[in-house]
Amino acid sequence: MTVGAAVGDAASSREAARVRELAGELFDALRMSTGDGVGITRASYGDGESAALDIIDAKARALGLRTGRDAGANLVVTLEGSEPGLPYLACGSHLDSVPQGGNFDGGAGVVAGLIVLAGLKVSGFRPRRTLKLFGLRGEESARFGKAYMGSSALFGRLTAADLAAKDTDSRFTLGECMRAVGVDVDRVEKGQPLVDAKDIAAWIELHIEQGPVLAARDLPIGIVTGIRGNIRHRNVECIGTAGHSGAVPRWLRHDAMFATSELISHLDHHWRTLLERGRDLVITTGVVATDPREHAIARIPGRLRFSFELRSQSKETLEAFYDLFLSECRLVGEERGVEFKLDRRLESAPAVMDPGWVGRLRAAARALGLPDEEMPSGAGHDAAVFANEGIPSAMIFVRNEHGSHNPDESMTLEDFAAGVAVMSAALREAAA
Amino acid sequence: MTVGAAVGDAASSREAARVRELAGELFDALRMSTGDGVGITRASYGDGESAALDIIDAKARALGLRTGRDAGANLVVTLEGSEPGLPYLACGSHLDSVPQGGNFDGGAGVVAGLIVLAGLKVSGFRPRRTLKLFGLRGEESARFGKAYMGSSALFGRLTAADLAAKDTDSRFTLGECMRAVGVDVDRVEKGQPLVDAKDIAAWIELHIEQGPVLAARDLPIGIVTGIRGNIRHRNVECIGTAGHSGAVPRWLRHDAMFATSELISHLDHHWRTLLERGRDLVITTGVVATDPREHAIARIPGRLRFSFELRSQSKETLEAFYDLFLSECRLVGEERGVEFKLDRRLESAPAVMDPGWVGRLRAAARALGLPDEEMPSGAGHDAAVFANEGIPSAMIFVRNEHGSHNPDESMTLEDFAAGVAVMSAALREAAA
Repeated sequence: MTVGAAVGDAASSREAARVRELAGELFDALRMSTGDGVGITRASYGDGESAALDIIDAKARALGLRTGRDAGANLVVTLEGSEPGLPYLACGSHLDSVPQGGNFDGGAGVVAGLIVLAGLKVSGFRPRRTLKLFGLRGEESARFGKAYMGSSALFGRLTAADLAAKDTDSRFTLGECMRAVGVDVDRVEKGQPLVDAKDIAAWIELHIEQGPVLAARDLPIGIVTGIRGNIRHRNVECIGTAGHSGAVPRWLRHDAMFATSELISHLDHHWRTLLERGRDLVITTGVVATDPREHAIARIPGRLRFSFELRSQSKETLEAFYDLFLSECRLVGEERGVEFKLDRRLESAPAVMDPGWVGRLRAAARALGLPDEEMPSGAGHDAAVFANEGIPSAMIFVRNEHGSHNPDESMTLEDFAAGVAVMSAALREAAA
Repeated sequence: MTVGAAVGDAASSREAARVRELAGELFDALRMSTGDGVGITRASYGDGESAALDIIDAKARALGLRTGRDAGANLVVTLEGSEPGLPYLACGSHLDSVPQGGNFDGGAGVVAGLIVLAGLKVSGFRPRRTLKLFGLRGEESARFGKAYMGSSALFGRLTAADLAAKDTDSRFTLGECMRAVGVDVDRVEKGQPLVDAKDIAAWIELHIEQGPVLAARDLPIGIVTGIRGNIRHRNVECIGTAGHSGAVPRWLRHDAMFATSELISHLDHHWRTLLERGRDLVITTGVVATDPREHAIARIPGRLRFSFELRSQSKETLEAFYDLFLSECRLVGEERGVEFKLDRRLESAPAVMDPGWVGRLRAAARALGLPDEEMPSGAGHDAAVFANEGIPSAMIFVRNEHGSHNPDESMTLEDFAAGVAVMSAALREAAA
C-alpha cells in the first residue's frame, strides 16, 4: 500500500462507500427500467435509451447539478467553473445498448461521471474550468450498422448515407429516429458541428473492459493508450447457385456456404500469420445466414449473407488486410464460381489517447495505491471520435468478467469505485 | 454412328416421330389439366394426381391397352404376355408433383412407359412375359413430409405413423387422403403387401435428371447405377462463446462461425480426396444461421446452427464419411474450444441398380448409336423402394436443364425419344 493511500484511508473508505451506494442505486434503476427479461435493451435513438437518459437526468437534478439536452439530444450535466470562458473538461459515455445487452457497457461511464461531478460539488470544490458530463446517444452499431452516431453528430461527421441507414427491422431510418428524440437533424444533415471541438479541453471516459485481459491479469483497472478502428461490411452476400443437394456433383457446385467457409478459413490463416508478425488485428463475422425464403436441408444454398468486420489500432494494418479480404473474395469466387457482393464499406479510424492524460491518470492511480497498467482498447469508443477531432482524450477501463454485449457482464462496485477515484482525482487536478 | 443405328435409320426416325407426337400430346394434356398458373400441381393423393392418372388411363385404353387400378389406387396398364404365369416386367414412375412443380418430374416416366407398351403392341410384338406400366401415386414428400408413399404401400411398408401424418394444411391425414382416392387402407394399415415382390421380374423407370450432369456433359441420356442414400442431421449446433468482436484476442476466441468454417473446409478437403479415390459422395449444409436473438455485427457469434447431409450410393462410404464428420467435429471442437451438438441422426439407405439391367440398358443404348454413360442418381426415386424389395431395378435419366421441383425444368422431346427407344429395346429383349 502506498503512503498516499494510507494517509487518505478513512476518507477514501467513506468516499468508496458513497460511490458504491450511489452507483448501486443508479445501476439498479437503469436495469429495472430497461430490462428485457434476458438482459437490458436500450436501442440507439429508441425508448430504452431515452429512459436511461431520463434516469440520469433526474438523479443529477436531485443532486443539485444543472442538466439539459444538447442539439444532438444527448444529456448534458454541468458543474460550472469559476472561469466559464475556458475550454471545459468533458466526461461521460453512452447510454444505448445492443439488444439483450449488459447494464454496464456505456452506463458505467455515465454513472461514473455523475458520481464524480456530484462528489466534487458536495465536497465544496469549486473548479476553475467547467466540467460537463455527457450521456451520449447512439454509440452501438447494432441497430443501424454504424457506431458512434451520437458523438459523430456532435462534430458534424454524419453523412446523408448514414442518416438514410435503416434500422434492423427496416422500418425507420437513422435520421427519422434521431428527429423523433429531438436531434436537430437539419444541422446534422448539413454536417454542421453541434459543439465546437476547441471548447473542449479533454474527453475522459470510464468504461468496462470488453475483453478478458484485466480479469486474466487480476487488475481492477487499466489506463487505455489507443483504440482500435475498424472496417466493416454489414452485409456480404455470397451468390452461388442453388440446386438439388443429391443431384449436383462437387465439380458442378457453386455452394455459397462452402465458398464462404473457404474464404473465412483463408482469412483465418492470414490473420494468424499477421499476429505472428506482431500486427494488431481481430476479424469477426457476427451475423451469418442462408436465405430463409429458399433454403432447405436438401438444397445447395445459392445465397449466404454474412457481416464482416476487421479491427486494428493501425490504419495501415486495417487497409492491408482489407485488400487481402477483397483479393480472397475474388480468388475464392473465381475458384468456386460464386460472387461475393459487398455492401457499403463502413469504417472508423483508430485513435491514439493523449499521452499527457494517460500520464495524469496513471499518476492518479499510483497516488491512490492502484495499479497503473497501460493497455490498448480492442473495442471502439466515443473517445476515439473525440480524439480524432483533436481533443485530448483518455479512458479508464474497469475489470469486467464475461465480456460485454451480453447480460452476463460482471463488474464489482469495488473495481468501479477504484476507476471513479482515479477519474475524480485526475479531473479535479485538471479543473483546478 | 453404329451399324445398328445406320441399318434402322429410316424405321427409327419414323419411330422417333411417333414418340415425339404422342409424348407432345400427353405432356400438353397433363400440363393443361394440372397447371396452376406458375407450374403444375398434382398433390399426392389429391385431385391433380387423380386427373393425371385419368389422362394416361384414357389414352392407354384408346391405344387398345388394358387398364385398371390396383389396391394402392395406382394406375396399371397391362400388355399381356403369352406366358402370364411368369413374373412380369414393370415400368413407370409417379404422377404426383410438388406444388408449382414441373410437368416432367415423374410424368415423363409414365408417358414413356405408355409409349413403349403402345409401340410394342402396334408393332405386333407378342411378349412372352407380361409388361405392366404403373402410374404411381404419392412419390413426393411435399404434402405429407414422406416420400415414396405409393411404392411403399405396395410392399406393406407404410407405418401407422406414416398414415397419421397430416398434409401441409394440417387438414387431412395421409390415410384419409389414400382412402378418398380408393386405396385399400385397411390392408395398408396392417402392413400387408398389395403386390407380391416375387411376381415382379424387374422395375424400369425413366426420369428426368434432377441435376446438371447430362447437360454439362452434353449427353441426352444416362444409365443409373445406384440411388444415393443419405445420412442427415437437420440441426447441428456449434456452441462457442459470444464476446465483443473487438476486445477478445484470437487466442481467447471460441468463434462458432470460424470453427464451423474450419470444419466445413476440412470436410471439403476430405470430400475432394475421396472423389479422387473414386468414391461417390456429396455433402451439403443447406441451412445455416447464427442466432437472430443474439447475433450482431460487433459480436463474436457464440452459436451457429447448420443442417448437414451426406449422400452416397455406397453405405460404406456414407458410414466412413460420417465417422470422419464426427472426428472432425471433435478435432475442430477441441482445437477451438467449441462444441458441435448433433440432433437425431436420420438416414435412408442407398439402393443399387441391378447390374444385369444396367448392362442391358447400356447395350441397348449403344445399339441405337446413343451414349451409354453410367451415372448415380443423387435424388431418391420409387426405383429405390423396388430395388430394396429385391426386385432387379434400373433407371434411365433424360437430360434436363434447370433442375426439378420447379416450373423451369426443361427436357427436349428429342432427348425423351432417345430414352424411350432405349427403354423399349431393353424391355422388348427381356420380354421376348
